[in-house]
Formats: sequence, structure tokens, C-alpha cells
Amino acid sequence: MLHQQIDQKLSEKKAWALRRQLGIPNNKRLWVLACMDERLPVEKALGINEGDAHIFRNAGGLVTDDAIRSAMLTTQFFGTKEIIVLNHTECGMMTASGDFLSEVLHQKGIDVDRVNIDPSLPELQLPKGFFSKWIKTFTDVDAICVKQVELLRNSPLIPEDVVINGYIWQVESMSLRRPYERLSQKVNTSEEMERHTTN
Amino acid sequence: MLHQQIDQKLSEKKAWALRRQLGIPNNKRLWVLACMDERLPVEKALGINEGDAHIFRNAGGLVTDDAIRSAMLTTQFFGTKEIIVLNHTECGMMTASGDFLSEVLHQKGIDVDRVNIDPSLPELQLPKGFFSKWIKTFTDVDAICVKQVELLRNSPLIPEDVVINGYIWQVESMSLRRPYERLSQKVNTSEEMERHTTN
Amino acid sequence: MLHQQIDQKLSEKKAWALRRQLGIPNNKRLWVLACMDERLPVEKALGINEGDAHIFRNAGGLVTDDAIRSAMLTTQFFGTKEIIVLNHTECGMMTASGDFLSEVLHQKGIDVDRVNIDPSLPELQLPKGFFSKWIKTFTDVDAICVKQVELLRNSPLIPEDVVINGYIWQVESMSLRRPYERLSQKVNTSEEMERHTTN
Amino acid sequence: MLHQQIDQKLSEKKAWALRRQLGIPNNKRLWVLACMDERLPVEKALGINEGDAHIFRNAGGLVTDDAIRSAMLTTQFFGTKEIIVLNHTECGMMTASGDFLSEVLHQKGIDVDRVNIDPSLPELQLPKGFFSKWIKTFTDVDAICVKQVELLRNSPLIPEDVVINGYIWQVESMSLRRPYERLSQKVNTSEEMERHTTN
Amino acid sequence: MLHQQIDQKLSEKKAWALRRQLGIPNNKRLWVLACMDERLPVEKALGINEGDAHIFRNAGGLVTDDAIRSAMLTTQFFGTKEIIVLNHTECGMMTASGDFLSEVLHQKGIDVDRVNIDPSLPELQLPKGFFSKWIKTFTDVDAICVKQVELLRNSPLIPEDVVINGYIWQVESMSLRRPYERLSQKVNTSEEMERHTTN
Amino acid sequence: MLHQQIDQKLSEKKAWALRRQLGIPNNKRLWVLACMDERLPVEKALGINEGDAHIFRNAGGLVTDDAIRSAMLTTQFFGTKEIIVLNHTECGMMTASGDFLSEVLHQKGIDVDRVNIDPSLPELQLPKGFFSKWIKTFTDVDAICVKQVELLRNSPLIPEDVVINGYIWQVESMSLRRPYERLSQKVNTSEEMERHTTN
Amino acid sequence: MLHQQIDQKLSEKKAWALRRQLGIPNNKRLWVLACMDERLPVEKALGINEGDAHIFRNAGGLVTDDAIRSAMLTTQFFGTKEIIVLNHTECGMMTASGDFLSEVLHQKGIDVDRVNIDPSLPELQLPKGFFSKWIKTFTDVDAICVKQVELLRNSPLIPEDVVINGYIWQVESMSLRRPYERLSQKVNTSEEMERHTTN
Amino acid sequence: MLHQQIDQKLSEKKAWALRRQLGIPNNKRLWVLACMDERLPVEKALGINEGDAHIFRNAGGLVTDDAIRSAMLTTQFFGTKEIIVLNHTECGMMTASGDFLSEVLHQKGIDVDRVNIDPSLPELQLPKGFFSKWIKTFTDVDAICVKQVELLRNSPLIPEDVVINGYIWQVESMSLRRPYERLSQKVNTSEEMERHTTN
Repeated sequence: MLHQQIDQKLSEKKAWALRRQLGIPNNKRLWVLACMDERLPVEKALGINEGDAHIFRNAGGLVTDDAIRSAMLTTQFFGTKEIIVLNHTECGMMTASGDFLSEVLHQKGIDVDRVNIDPSLPELQLPKGFFSKWIKTFTDVDAICVKQVELLRNSPLIPEDVVINGYIWQVESMSLRRPYERLSQKVNTSEEMERHTTN
Repeated sequence: MLHQQIDQKLSEKKAWALRRQLGIPNNKRLWVLACMDERLPVEKALGINEGDAHIFRNAGGLVTDDAIRSAMLTTQFFGTKEIIVLNHTECGMMTASGDFLSEVLHQKGIDVDRVNIDPSLPELQLPKGFFSKWIKTFTDVDAICVKQVELLRNSPLIPEDVVINGYIWQVESMSLRRPYERLSQKVNTSEEMERHTTN
Repeated sequence: MLHQQIDQKLSEKKAWALRRQLGIPNNKRLWVLACMDERLPVEKALGINEGDAHIFRNAGGLVTDDAIRSAMLTTQFFGTKEIIVLNHTECGMMTASGDFLSEVLHQKGIDVDRVNIDPSLPELQLPKGFFSKWIKTFTDVDAICVKQVELLRNSPLIPEDVVINGYIWQVESMSLRRPYERLSQKVNTSEEMERHTTN
Repeated sequence: MLHQQIDQKLSEKKAWALRRQLGIPNNKRLWVLACMDERLPVEKALGINEGDAHIFRNAGGLVTDDAIRSAMLTTQFFGTKEIIVLNHTECGMMTASGDFLSEVLHQKGIDVDRVNIDPSLPELQLPKGFFSKWIKTFTDVDAICVKQVELLRNSPLIPEDVVINGYIWQVESMSLRRPYERLSQKVNTSEEMERHTTN
Repeated sequence: MLHQQIDQKLSEKKAWALRRQLGIPNNKRLWVLACMDERLPVEKALGINEGDAHIFRNAGGLVTDDAIRSAMLTTQFFGTKEIIVLNHTECGMMTASGDFLSEVLHQKGIDVDRVNIDPSLPELQLPKGFFSKWIKTFTDVDAICVKQVELLRNSPLIPEDVVINGYIWQVESMSLRRPYERLSQKVNTSEEMERHTTN
Repeated sequence: MLHQQIDQKLSEKKAWALRRQLGIPNNKRLWVLACMDERLPVEKALGINEGDAHIFRNAGGLVTDDAIRSAMLTTQFFGTKEIIVLNHTECGMMTASGDFLSEVLHQKGIDVDRVNIDPSLPELQLPKGFFSKWIKTFTDVDAICVKQVELLRNSPLIPEDVVINGYIWQVESMSLRRPYERLSQKVNTSEEMERHTTN
Repeated sequence: MLHQQIDQKLSEKKAWALRRQLGIPNNKRLWVLACMDERLPVEKALGINEGDAHIFRNAGGLVTDDAIRSAMLTTQFFGTKEIIVLNHTECGMMTASGDFLSEVLHQKGIDVDRVNIDPSLPELQLPKGFFSKWIKTFTDVDAICVKQVELLRNSPLIPEDVVINGYIWQVESMSLRRPYERLSQKVNTSEEMERHTTN
Repeated sequence: MLHQQIDQKLSEKKAWALRRQLGIPNNKRLWVLACMDERLPVEKALGINEGDAHIFRNAGGLVTDDAIRSAMLTTQFFGTKEIIVLNHTECGMMTASGDFLSEVLHQKGIDVDRVNIDPSLPELQLPKGFFSKWIKTFTDVDAICVKQVELLRNSPLIPEDVVINGYIWQVESMSLRRPYERLSQKVNTSEEMERHTTN
């Protein structure tokens, strides 16, 4: 009867809306750490859809205390079993050094050593002189991706059985690659050619 | 000639890839603070597309030091002029208290008072006893949305001319609303009816 | 041969056109009682198609003598086995009281106590003073939906084995719900959280 | 700015949901009186869409007190200016006489002279012996369509400036026609042919 | 290998082009006799496609010596096993009598009794006074359809095992029917209703 | 108002159905003489649609008395101003001679000299011995196309201001050409080349 | 897990990019020799897609030393097993003689006997007086296609087990055919007709 | 009239088929020199369509005597005004040296010093010992692209006003770039950042 079909759909809709209350994890039991950049289409890059993952994004796609907090919640309480780190080439975090950025803010009249970095948690303290380091600029996207995986891997707040991998989105070609793995740079040798053609 | 058309396309592609180096802002000069939840389709909720915004997402869609860091970078250095905060109903951050979550972690053998909250920035210090507050659970999504707008508005790291608004995504109806504005709850009066029907 | 295929199609078409004469019920053996409002897309709301149901609609989606007449015909003579009542939020029947509406008509010069309520059946009599009640305004959509199901359930003109259910279309979210069942209002407890996360 | 576009959309959505409270009529200021039959696709037959009309449907597409009640509400209070009556060929109301149907109900043990025809309005009285007439069966769809237009036209509860027309849906050809206007039955004369061919 | 696929396609194409030389019949082994009218979409009416049938069309969709010649060729030499006659309502052949048309031609200065009716076959003779009959106007489409089937059925030039049927396209509803079979004209009886509803 | 739109559509539909009675010609005022072959998609070949033309089709696409009758009716009485003859390559009429076909029929027991060639018009007489010629086989599609145009051009039953052209459909390439105009057979000269390259 | 799916896709992409290094042949192990003409859509003509074949194209689609070089590389080193030659009607190489073209160049001031025909390989020598022959104009597309297959077949630089075929694209009908195989030119005999129709 | 439209289309079709005879150039007056590789989709890479260009393809996309011959014909005789060279990364011509390839052929029993490099033009002579150079392998795709443009630019057989450019298709990202222009390798400086943010 029709009312049974309608009731079934209403139940499915309710389960979607109350996922956290009902202890239902996201579809792929996945947490993503990605950069906030507009050139990084996270779902498209990973081939995932609405409902598949918790997606954390910040400037750089970097491990911060907020990233640790969010990763702790999803893996300890929301059923997540896999983490993917997603950085990208041409990141804004590579365009200047932290010291340079601090200096620009200083020239704009901001006292970077006395500013409250978390206005909702004044107890969180950053010692004087560490503002530039707190900005977390970097210079090598391959190194930074590998490093973030390592930082997450070693945090006691993330269960050891969570699987963690990192990838890099190339904004110039709109495609994904593993860190340090670029095509078109391998040197060919005649030995290779001979091996293939003698078959 | 064809080579002119090709060169034009290559130039446009280059400008996309090198946006940060060339000082080109995102399409809508927009930064979004949203929850990482899988039921919150940020682009669809706001009606935006790839390239339109820097999208920061964390557990709850809350102001943290990472959110301030990212908002500072996009507004001070990357040309952003507007901020939208996007929270949602049935958020996992409303399913339990911070103290309860801390207790669960403690039972799992994690010393929440001695854990390094930012493994890449050990200088960032959280005093003993504030771990539960650092988790930032909440109980009222309308109040929390209004509060985040206020926290951002008052941060000296964000320029005063940046426009800031907050919205709530209703996961049960997959639709957007302003805080405290729910339809279907207004009381009608006969005076209203009379006014309409006499025209 | 082609003529056999054509004859088959003509027979199917004939069976559609002569359904009532041939004693063929509608596809889902379903009768719907719904409001006449333009914001209530009956087929879409119920997920049904052309041919699936007899659809009765009046102001409010309410049980009237006409509704009883139509329900009696479809269930006693046309093979219908299921009834669905479909009301909606923000109904025009909730915007004013019957007395107020009667007063407006009176001011327009209409003698509501002497008007012929069914011009094709003058024998149908409404005692003086009951015009406002006859308009059937209401104030609570959940209560009115439950009530209509009950009124139909108790009518001796409808067979007892007919299954009857009621639903409410929310015009503000364009979605269906059961009476008194709204999501996003349940209170969470720490016990629930603990139960889910320990698995 | 994006928030302005979002606010604009939220306002439009609100105006849709609160149409009756805000005194906004349906799109075409139209009320339709149609049969409840599953072979009558009202919107498709009239070429209208969701939001365009208040659609009243009952067994036969006939003027009843409920139809008058609903027509009164839409024309006097909800801004409607046009009425279309929509009957159809092969209607179930033409398959048997009211007396025959009453007899069938009687044989099923239903006392048609004592039954409560409107369980929510017991004050509505039908004199003994008029049950068969109350069922409103008919034998000629063209005549019945013209008659319903006339009944509505003469009701004092419907404003005189409301425009009223009637049409018939032919279920066998799935097409619309005016009452008494069937193609393919006109007699040709040689005079017509001569007039056309001499031009 | 690719050349094998290409050769296969070329062979299929060749078989299409040389169907008559290779003795391949049309897809449905079908010959259609239909009117030349622009309101008669033969393929759509019959639900057939390019390649399915030999389609003969003349004024009226009538049996003539040309129709017999063409039917003889397709059934005796080209493998056809089925014939469908397709007439239509509102045919131009029903708009005037043959005598009237002859008179009009006469007034235009054409000597209908001396004109060569087949300029490529002067041996074909029509006796004086039969021009009007040769035009083949008619007045009843159902009768004419049945008659054409009979004329073909009795021709010695068409093999006896060829299956022959006739249909009528209704231009006013753009639908097909069998001769003398119109829906919506059958008289219902209470006995029918009783028989259906007692199950 | 909606009823005006509906009435407009009904009027247009009526005008379509009653075209011949109302003296409305087909869309392109066109009559086509084409072969009945299944490989000849007349509308596609000419780029025309339903309603555009009266389409006469027989075995070969040849002028017969039936073709003259039909062409006379459309041009003298139905408003047609243009005629297109459409023959095709690989026609079945070129696969054997008329004498051969007559002989085959004779062997099947059919007395071709006594058979009634038009069973509905016994007055139409074909002298003994002309059956083979009446079949109208041919050997050259270009010549036959040009000839049919000439036969129609010279018939007194077709008005002189009717424009007549002939085309050939090539079934092997599914494309149209004018008679005697085949591409890929023109001989090039060096003079042509020189003229082009010196510009 | 998602990272496994992503790794799989990256591996497939890498295999595409490094096909030659990895010794992976093209999809159909096919080499095509075709004319460079803009009216010859090679992939469409052969029904192949990106990745399916190595496609060599020059003026005329002719065997040259460059064609031999390329065919040698693909068959001896890149895994190719099949060759298809693709010429076309109305080729520019048939519009004038080599001598005429040489004369035109001479008049433009180019000393065709002293020009360097391969500027990157000056060792490649063409004796004086052979420039016109080197241009390789031709007059018969069927003969030239058959000849190119033969030239490739006999080259010691191409393995004997490579399968070689030639086809001709007809630009006037945009279709493929085998050399010397044109439809629509075969003469029919009565014997053929008799054989088909007696079955 | 329809015949005029048909004649117009036939004329356009004829002009396409006889382009070379009529001296009509290709749509973009363009000649492309590209590699024959299956991973290089020439039309897609350049954004061109059927009819737009003469496309020469050989192993490597290199200037050979055949390339010069074809470029001479298209620019001197067929109206071409622009040349684009299209090489690609991961080309098979970079996988081994010419000497290695010659050695492999020698081991297979082929006497590379005596083989006829152009079987249809035996007068074309390659001195003994130059076979490896004739194969034209290379090691740097950026250098080879720039070199081919230069070789064409300097050939006396190509008119000086022809515009010549070169591009490289990156098979790993399926995208185009100019020689020596790779994104993601530019070094940023703080000066750039400062310049952008102070505006």
C-alpha cells in the first residue's frame, strides 16, 4: 500500500537528519583535511559525493589544534576509520614567509604579539614571538603533505587503526597525484626499450 | 588566427593556476566558515560554484584560532571582502557535553591534560583543565551562529569593512534559514485577513 | 504481424478509456483527500502518477458530505482499498475564524442564513446560524489531520477494511511528515552518545 | 554580495510559504472544479503548473455545497477571478443510476436514510428519500458541464465579475473540447468547396 | 582486427542498398495503402520505422489500378506478407462529390471526357462519362476502409495468404481506431455495474 | 485569462482537423510523387515535416492515372503550387523486365490479359497484351526521373503555374542529387588549378 | 577504503601517460596511413576512438620514406599488428600534375632542383629533375589505394605478419568503400529476380 | 519553394566535396604538423573541428621531406596561411636512441644500409650510415618543438607570410602548453606579495 512506501521514505529521511544522534557514521567513514583554496574542488578531486565524508578545510590544509580537535571527534565519536590529507600546488601559503606577513600586519597597526588568537577561548596561549610560526606558511607542497600525514599518525588523540594517506591536487592540470610522484620526469634507457620489444 | 585563440586560453588557464601569486582573489571575494558535517553541502546551500570562495570547515563551524588564522589570511592578503558563517541543525557538537567527551577519552587511556593539542606548534599552550572547553560543544544552533558572527566581527585581525553574516542549514528539510527565523510559527489575526480582502 | 501489435495497443487504450464501465480500479486502488491549495502538489507529495488515484480536493482537505459521497463511491463501487488524507501547513483555513469570514460576507450584502448552500440540491438544509461552522476553518494542522482520519474511519459508508492514513505537507520546506512528527526537536542525552561510541 | 542574493531567495521562499497570510493569490487567480477520476490529469489538460490554481475535485466534478464553500473562499477571500469546470467522458457517475447505487448499499446493510452524510457537521440535514439524488449521478457529460457553469454563475456566494467556463476532457483521445463541440461531424456542402477553390 | 569490423559494416550497408537485387524483403514484410493527406503521419500512426514497409499513398488511400499494380509487385515479387489499409477522418475526398469536381474542371476549360488519364500509358482507356467516378470521392470513412480491404482481398493479383486489415486515423485526436469502433458511445447498464461491484 | 488561452488552442486544433473543409492547403503547398520503397525516407530526404506536403507514393514513383488523379485533386482543389518527383537508385522496378514479371505471374496461374486491374472501377480498360507495359518497369533512374517531370508538366489536368522538379535519392549513400548530376566524375585541368592559385 | 580507489585510478592514468616507456601498444594495435585533407575525418571514417591507433597523415595518404619510417617504428617497436590505408575521392593530389606544380613554383622563383627537401637531414638526396615525381600527384584513387597497400606489403622494414588493407573515403557521400567497389553500378538480370522470387 | 531550398543544400554539399577543384581552402586556412601518437587527440588539443585544417602526422611530429612536401602543397596551392606544430610529452621517439633502434633492426636481419627507404621513389637516396639519423629520435620535447618551427620557418618552399607556432601536449595532464612554459615552477618573492596586498 502507498502509505507503507511513504512511511519507508520518511524513515530514511529521518535517519539522514538524525545521523549523529543515531550513531550513524558518514557513508565512507572518512575525514578529509584539505586547504580552503577556491581552486581545490575537494569532492571532485577525491571522487566523493554529498554524505560521504567529514571535510575539514583550513588555510593550507595543515594540522592545527583545530584539525586535531575535529579529527579526534570524528574518529573517536563519529565512526570514522580513514583520513585523507589533500594539499595543492600554487598554494597561497607558499607565496610569502610568515615573518613577511607579520610585518605587513604590524604596518597595518595590528599588535601581533598581543592579539587574541582564539576570541572564544582566551585560555589558549601563544607565547610572544611565535605569531609568524603560527601562520604556518611553507615552501614545498610535497614535503608539507607527507609531514601532515606524519603529524596525524603520531597524535595520541587519533586511534591507531585509522588509515591515513596524503595526496596533492595540481591546480595547473586539475588532477591528483601522490607526493613526490610526478610523471614526465623519468629518464628512459635503451634497456627498457629492448626488454619491451623483444617480447 | 588559431594560435591567438590558443594563446588566449593558455593565458586564462595560467591566471587560474597562479591566482595567489598574481594577487587575484576568488570569484566572489568570499570566505565561508562552515561545519565539516557530511550532511552540509556547502556550495549547494549557498548557491556557489568552484572558484567562488575560500571554504573553511571544522567540527561545528566554529571560531577557533585556526579559523581566525585562515580568515586573517584571506581578508588581509587574498582580497576577500565578505564572510558567511554556516551552521546546521542536528550538529554532532550538540549530541553530548565536553565534559562527557573528555571522560570518554580518559576512559580510553588518553591523558587529556597533557596531550599536545597542536603537534606542529608545541608552543601553543592550553592550561590544564580546559580540554573540555577546547572541544567547543554547544546546545543551541541559533545562538551559536549569531555568536560566531560576533566573534569574527570583533577580531582585530579581520578588517572592519568585511561584511559578515550567518545562516543555518536545516538538515531535515535540506534548506537554508536565518538564525531565529523559522516559518510556520507566526500567529495570524483577523485584522490581517480583513486588510488583504478589502483591497 | 503488425496488425496484431496495433490491435493489442488499441485494446489497452480501450481498457483505459472504459475503466469504470469495465470495473477496473485505479492503479493503486487509492483515494486521496487533499486541500485545493496551489502550494500542495498532490502527486509529487505522494510520489504517484497519472492513473494511480482518485484525488478529492476541497478547501482545507476536510471531511464534508461531498467527501463522504466521493469516498463512498470509490470504495464501495470503484475498487478502492486505501485512503490518504493530505493537509498542509500555512493553510488558508487557518488565517481567520469562520465568524470573521461570515461577517465579511454579511458586510458585502450576502445573507448567509438564507443562501442556498447547494444550488443543485435544495433539499440539503443547513439550520440558521451554522454558516460559520459550515465554512470549517481550523487552527491546528496536526490536530485537523488526525481528526479527518478518525471521521472517515467511523463513517458507515466506508468499508471497514479500507486502510486510512494522514500526512502533512510542509509548504515551507516542500516536504511530507506524519502528524505531530517534526524532526530537530528531540533532546539528546549523554547516555545515547555513550551507547553509540562504545560499539 | 552573496548574502544579499541569499536573503533575496529566502524572502521569495517565505512569500511562497505565507501566500495566504500575505494575501497573495495563486498565479493565475484561478479555481478549477474537476472530477476526481484518475484518467483526468487536471494540470496537463489545462496546461497549468504548480502554483497556478486552486483545484477542487470531487466525484463527477459537480457543484455541491462543498464546491460552493470552496469557491466562495477562493473568490471572496483568496483573490481568485476565474473559474473553470472540467468534466470528462466515460465518467463513473454515468455508469449507473443513483437508485441502483442506493439499492446496492442497502443490500450491504447500510441504512442510507439514517446515515450521517457529514460526520463533522451533524447539523447538515438531508431529508429522508433524497440519498439517491445526493449521489448526483448523471447521463450526459455535455449537459452536466453546461449545467455546472450555470449553477456557479447563479450562486450569490460567488462574485459576479468572476469569469466561468466549462470544458470536457475526452479520456479516449486524451484531449480537451468545449461542451457540444465535437469535430468530425460537420456536414460539408459543395458550395463550401466551390468558395474555397475559386480563390 | 579493425578491417574485419569495417568489412562487416560495409557488407551490411551493401545488403541495405541492394535489397531488391538480393531478394531481401522490407523489415516487416508489409505493404501499406494510405491517403496522401499531410495530416496522416503514416509511420507514426502505425508505429513503424524507416525500412519497415512499402508505403503506397494516393488521394483517399483507395484501391486503384496503380494500387493493385504496386500491391501485386510487393506481394508477388518482393516478399511482402501483410497489407494494412489506412484511411482517415476529415478526408478531402469527402468534401465534395465527383460530379461537382468534374463540373469545376469543366468550367476551367478542361474536357474531362477527352483528357488522357495516364499520359505514359495511352492504351489505358476510361469510357466517356466515367471521369467523375474515376475521381473516387466518398462519404463514409468507415465504409470506405472496410471496402478497400475487401477489394484487395478479392483481387487475383494478390496471393491468398497475404493478411489484410484496415484502420482509421482520426485527425481530430491524432489517434488510430478500427472501422466502426468508436469509444465513448457505448450504453451502460446497471447490470454491468452490479456485476463488477459484487466481486 | 486561462480560458482564452485554452480556446485559442482548441481553435488551432480545429483548423488542423478541418483543413480540407476550411480550404487550408498543406504547409508548403507541396505534392510529392515518390516510390513506395522502404529505403526511401521521403520526409527526411526532402527535409520536410508532418503537415508540409501531400505525399503520393507508388511502385517506382511513376506517373500513372492514379498519380494524375491525385495531382489534379491537390493542385486544382487543395491549394498546392509545387510538385517534386522523387525516384531512387537500386529501385525494384529496375530488377526485371515487365515481360519477365508477366511470365512469372502467368506461371503462377494468373491470366494477366483478363484480370481486372481496378476492381473498384471495372470501366477502366487495358487492352489485351499491355499488361507488361502497365507494370512500368524501367532501366535508367536518371532518365525516368526527368521523364516523370515532363509527363506531369504536359498534363492538362495540372495548372500551368505549378512548379515541377525531380530528384534522385541514392540509397547507397542515403543522399539526394539532381538527375544526371553525380559528383566525383568531373575531370580537372591544370588551367583551373592555375587560376585558383594565382589569386 | 577510498585511498585504494584513488591509487587504482592514479595507476591507470600513469599507465596511459607512460605507454611507450612501459611497452603498452595502442588499443587496437593499429597504424593508419591517411591523407591530411580536412574533409577526411579519420577516426569517424574508421569508427575508432582516442587511444585506438597511431595515425600517420600526409598529402595524399601516400607511402613516402617518412611513412616507411613511422610504420617501421610502430610495427617493429610499439606493438602494432595491423595497417589500414585510407585515401579519399576528390583529393587535391588529383587536381594537377607534378610538372604543372613544379612549373608554378619555378615561376614563383623557387629553384626546385636545388632546394633542400629535408632541412633537418641534408644527407637525404633527391637527384636533379625528380622534384615533380617527389610531389607524388596521381589520377586514380582506386589504383593509388591498392598500390600503397602493395608498397607497404613489400617493404622489408615492416614485419610480414602485419595485416594490411586499404579503403577509400567518398567525400561526396561521407562514406567508406573498398577500392573498385562502387554500389549502384551492377547490372541486374531476370535470372536473379526469378531465383529470388521462386523461394 | 522547397526545390529552391533543396537546390541550395545540394550546392553547399557540392562545394564541400569539390573544395580542391574549386580552390576553396580549409576553414581555418591551417596546416598542422603533429605526432602520430594515439595519446595525442589533435582536434581536441587545438579546439578545432572537421573541415578546419589539413593535419599532417608522423612519428614524432617532425619536419621531414614528406612534411615539407605536404606543407608546400597546402601553403603554395591550397590557400593555407597558418602552421601549428604539435609535439607531446612521453613521446615514443624519446624512449631510445636511433643507434639502438638500428641495432635492434640489424639483429632482426634487416640490412638498414641497403633498404629502400621510399619504395615508390627509389631515386631518393640516403647515404650509407645515416639510417639512425633518418629515424630522428630525440631527447627534449621543448627543444624539438622550437626546432621544428625554425626548420619550417627557414624552408624556401613555404611562403614567408605563413604564421608558424609550436605547442606541446602533455599526455599526463591532457593539456596544452607553450614550449618551455611549465606552471608550478615559478619562484615567488615577498616583493610580489607586498605589491598585490598594498592595493
